[in-house]
Amino acid sequence: MYSFKNDYAEGAHQSILNKLIQTNEVQQAGYGEDDYTKEAKALIKKEIDNPDADIFFVSGGTQANLLVISSILRTHQAVISPQTGHIFANETGAIEATGHKVIGVPTANGKLTATDIETTVSQYGLRPHVVEPKMVYISNSTELGTIYTKAELEAISSICKQLGLYLFIDGARLGHALTASDNTLTLKDIAALTDVFYIGATKNGGLLGEAIIFNNKELATYFDYNLKQRGALLAKGRLLGIQFQCLFENNLYFDLAKHANAMAAKLTEAFKAKGYSFLVESTTNQIFPILPLTLIKELNEHYDFFTWKAIDDQHAAIRLITSWATRENIVDEFIEKIK
Amino acid sequence: MYSFKNDYAEGAHQSILNKLIQTNEVQQAGYGEDDYTKEAKALIKKEIDNPDADIFFVSGGTQANLLVISSILRTHQAVISPQTGHIFANETGAIEATGHKVIGVPTANGKLTATDIETTVSQYGLRPHVVEPKMVYISNSTELGTIYTKAELEAISSICKQLGLYLFIDGARLGHALTASDNTLTLKDIAALTDVFYIGATKNGGLLGEAIIFNNKELATYFDYNLKQRGALLAKGRLLGIQFQCLFENNLYFDLAKHANAMAAKLTEAFKAKGYSFLVESTTNQIFPILPLTLIKELNEHYDFFTWKAIDDQHAAIRLITSWATRENIVDEFIEKIK
Amino acid sequence: MYSFKNDYAEGAHQSILNKLIQTNEVQQAGYGEDDYTKEAKALIKKEIDNPDADIFFVSGGTQANLLVISSILRTHQAVISPQTGHIFANETGAIEATGHKVIGVPTANGKLTATDIETTVSQYGLRPHVVEPKMVYISNSTELGTIYTKAELEAISSICKQLGLYLFIDGARLGHALTASDNTLTLKDIAALTDVFYIGATKNGGLLGEAIIFNNKELATYFDYNLKQRGALLAKGRLLGIQFQCLFENNLYFDLAKHANAMAAKLTEAFKAKGYSFLVESTTNQIFPILPLTLIKELNEHYDFFTWKAIDDQHAAIRLITSWATRENIVDEFIEKIK
Amino acid sequence: MYSFKNDYAEGAHQSILNKLIQTNEVQQAGYGEDDYTKEAKALIKKEIDNPDADIFFVSGGTQANLLVISSILRTHQAVISPQTGHIFANETGAIEATGHKVIGVPTANGKLTATDIETTVSQYGLRPHVVEPKMVYISNSTELGTIYTKAELEAISSICKQLGLYLFIDGARLGHALTASDNTLTLKDIAALTDVFYIGATKNGGLLGEAIIFNNKELATYFDYNLKQRGALLAKGRLLGIQFQCLFENNLYFDLAKHANAMAAKLTEAFKAKGYSFLVESTTNQIFPILPLTLIKELNEHYDFFTWKAIDDQHAAIRLITSWATRENIVDEFIEKIK
Repeated sequence: MYSFKNDYAEGAHQSILNKLIQTNEVQQAGYGEDDYTKEAKALIKKEIDNPDADIFFVSGGTQANLLVISSILRTHQAVISPQTGHIFANETGAIEATGHKVIGVPTANGKLTATDIETTVSQYGLRPHVVEPKMVYISNSTELGTIYTKAELEAISSICKQLGLYLFIDGARLGHALTASDNTLTLKDIAALTDVFYIGATKNGGLLGEAIIFNNKELATYFDYNLKQRGALLAKGRLLGIQFQCLFENNLYFDLAKHANAMAAKLTEAFKAKGYSFLVESTTNQIFPILPLTLIKELNEHYDFFTWKAIDDQHAAIRLITSWATRENIVDEFIEKIK
Repeated sequence: MYSFKNDYAEGAHQSILNKLIQTNEVQQAGYGEDDYTKEAKALIKKEIDNPDADIFFVSGGTQANLLVISSILRTHQAVISPQTGHIFANETGAIEATGHKVIGVPTANGKLTATDIETTVSQYGLRPHVVEPKMVYISNSTELGTIYTKAELEAISSICKQLGLYLFIDGARLGHALTASDNTLTLKDIAALTDVFYIGATKNGGLLGEAIIFNNKELATYFDYNLKQRGALLAKGRLLGIQFQCLFENNLYFDLAKHANAMAAKLTEAFKAKGYSFLVESTTNQIFPILPLTLIKELNEHYDFFTWKAIDDQHAAIRLITSWATRENIVDEFIEKIK
Repeated sequence: MYSFKNDYAEGAHQSILNKLIQTNEVQQAGYGEDDYTKEAKALIKKEIDNPDADIFFVSGGTQANLLVISSILRTHQAVISPQTGHIFANETGAIEATGHKVIGVPTANGKLTATDIETTVSQYGLRPHVVEPKMVYISNSTELGTIYTKAELEAISSICKQLGLYLFIDGARLGHALTASDNTLTLKDIAALTDVFYIGATKNGGLLGEAIIFNNKELATYFDYNLKQRGALLAKGRLLGIQFQCLFENNLYFDLAKHANAMAAKLTEAFKAKGYSFLVESTTNQIFPILPLTLIKELNEHYDFFTWKAIDDQHAAIRLITSWATRENIVDEFIEKIK
Repeated sequence: MYSFKNDYAEGAHQSILNKLIQTNEVQQAGYGEDDYTKEAKALIKKEIDNPDADIFFVSGGTQANLLVISSILRTHQAVISPQTGHIFANETGAIEATGHKVIGVPTANGKLTATDIETTVSQYGLRPHVVEPKMVYISNSTELGTIYTKAELEAISSICKQLGLYLFIDGARLGHALTASDNTLTLKDIAALTDVFYIGATKNGGLLGEAIIFNNKELATYFDYNLKQRGALLAKGRLLGIQFQCLFENNLYFDLAKHANAMAAKLTEAFKAKGYSFLVESTTNQIFPILPLTLIKELNEHYDFFTWKAIDDQHAAIRLITSWATRENIVDEFIEKIK
């Protein structure tokens, strides 16, 4: 059974494994002071065109989220998130466990708007009886595969500045957003419009790892302490450095994401050709076609995927995820099955 | 400059890298539900002769410590630790950050005694104005390279049972303890005498990873939730599973630790032959010879290590750490230098 | 300007002040071990007909809420609350600050239903990626002045038992609920149907104080430690004991609430007589008449109250709160004004 | 049995009760916005000669400590305290429960020195593996009844400034310190030399209450939110305002403390006259005479007090506490008993 369940079913891109082997016996300093980490940071700084950024590598997305949020917010401050946001819906209360309320805002397609932010803040005026919203958290691409346009992100960034809110982007699938066919943003834009964001490796070719990038350097003053205190500082930081060094050499990070998107686009096209509609329009590596239950059952005999949401007695939306590792011949076979 | 600064300066044992390559393209379930994790757990359960143990793999020692302690203790409970214990001295208040007091007990050589525990508990009687000591944390080997004898651990285990305390062993360097020349404990003993302990891979041949083993299964009821909530659940759990699968096949874990100890013993012998004394007696991979400052300076031109503690105007104790990766020819060269 | 803004604008019922004076020079043990506290507990136990209940007195509602919730829930567990619930809307993230997510459920009138609870729990199945809902929090009367019927509370209690959830009632205004004209519950019922609840004195004749009552004794095992740890244990516990001793002698608690309700009912009747409608139907001491803005402006010249919610260009709902101390002659004057 | 066990065995000074009665029916704003609170703040500002201070009233000492420390420190920062300090020894891990390590420093007599502070900070250099000491907590008078001289406090204040540490004084018994026969400090000095401190009412004539005074206003920016979030904001803030209004009119606060000290001095003199020695020299309201066990037994038949510490087979130190309410005739009777 081939799996379209997620984008972390395989190991890592071959170049990462090669680099692990090639560097294995070289002694290096621990705790992120190794050469590979330094080189990886340099590559990312160049890519975002900000030599002053502060960069830290951690193991996973929930860890990145809780570290960033808890290290920036003061005890009474809260973060605004779409209700579909990973921190609101899928992280076992990780943010609340650090003491902060996540204010969940309903959205149609996983995307928060500048207006949503303004309205939410206006509801938290009764100081000191309510939390102070102080950060906005969004994901790009979102948990529904949708992406933010440059205009949308500029509007969000602008309202955040106006209201004194920090803007934080969860980039677990940032590569997929930035290489989507209808994308209008660059990594440089992301860096220019946010206070802090991260670039995920786990879902785009790495064994593990997220690169947290503070464009607002002041917010990173104590981040090293926080990393250690939350158990996120790997003794062999080289493992993380190597992931990002490989991914940010030769455009690999974007090429891998492009492949994932292309595989999803192929599937999307095939569904559309058969007249199927979608729960939400997506140009990235997560798609949500609405299919007859009979077809879902049939596909399930050969492929592993989530049935996302019942639509009616006869139909449900499924979620298919492609990745850097998805084999095109299997996608073609899958398409044959739905024809 | 060759480094004797720590035991995490190199990558991983070759068999681990081989296994990463060999399994790389196999699709696996995420979040620790992969086959390698399952096989690794089975190997460890066999080794400790407890099919009922609950086992979880995490990335590092501080993460293991904060997860275990915060998931077991109720809000008002505290953990007793030697003042040299990693959780008391070297983890940036990671335990306190989860809400729990660490009661630090002074020791001569990094080892807590049954009497220390009894005395400490007796000082916390004024309910509800004081915390309730409810767990004992020790490391084997300790941060000073010393190890617990079977009799000592039995006495500690017994007083813990008598006083209703959980016993938790930090095993970041457990391999080195269990293969020390004067060791009297087995991994099976460790499992039988504790409620929970962990086996460290990071400092003994793995890229990363600690295997947390709950012998007292009841304490693990909610541990999966905690793993996720604290950001410790890797999407690609296979990475951790593979470390332990390799280390617990063919006795590798013990062979690697034995090598590290042998290298340290060679150095110890050479220092003794020259009449140097030690800050503390150690039979594991951390040694603390007291040397003339002139010799320290000379050695420092060729080798990297910590100067641990000033002794007098002319002498200081240094710390040398050997590992699974320490090359014997370099140790021999080092010995030549001190002759 | 007479205030209908809240029910804590005056000091305390005279009998409490008298008792403070009369007992002032008697030496008593500290930290809630005094005679008045003991007597107050005995009176409450008798009233709820449960000699085995565990009772603790604290200073205020937010304190009671955070203490109860954080002492009962394990780190990964969450509490379900109406979105209008005080812990969700009005306590500055006090529950999240103790590490727990509050799951907010929208309601029409501030009241949670058994179905709401069942639906919510069904959405939190993806262990370990989501919190575990483990407690239901409701208020009686609610923040909108509405009350639960016996049938409704029985249904809630029953679904909680079935789903393994604790049921906790915030009784900041419990007296007003139990003396409402259409009330069908007794204090004994409340005790029988919940795991833990509290009785508020602050809003019903006391200077301060909430009496937390654990009907499920096991949940109170460590509560004394928690009280101290959160800074809630008053050295002069006698101050709290005296409040409840006075309020639970001679039915005073219920008589005072009845007076508050009667004053609100008088106002309600007057508004109805004039044809005004209400935002929500309430039979307790908080009412929400919808009035023309011109009338609101006029009333505001003589009375202090909150304008709660804009209805249309010409109308808004105001909130009027009466209390044990509300003077009937002023209510009569107010009624004259709206005639 | 007359109690010398503590200084909170009686109610409150008569003027406070009178004021409660006199103001009882006056409607006031809630949550500390009442007139009595405002007047009390004005009185204290005048007393410390700092119109810019930010002042907040809370219920008790542990609450004051946890609020001040958790609202000022960032997540990785720690507070230095004498090992006898209330936050280290007697508050059930209240500070750790907010996430912060308390670094306990051994002292001879409960008093921290500037050198202690300097030494402690020097031990926390290994960033990011250790907490950052960022605040110093001391009590005046200390838990052993000793007091700081002006020179000592100046030295502490100076080293704190030099090392970038905040200085916080727990003033649960500040009145007793400032009226001790050998005191060299004024309330104005305390304000000038600290960033934040509090004045305790609970142990000096109030029913409850501590006045937290931020001399470093910037540290108070969000304190109102914190008050609410930790459950410390009383709806009827008037209760706290009235305590301090009464205590800071007509020098009452100091007169009451002076009485307590005088009663202790009388006892001290009597013990000295009989040749008894003391565990520690104290000029405030807590004294620790070392007495024969036979005499202790005899006294215990008539008086309640703590036996503090065994000295030898025949002797123990007891703790006697006097207060604003201690009756001189009983002290005289007690003295007769030891003659």
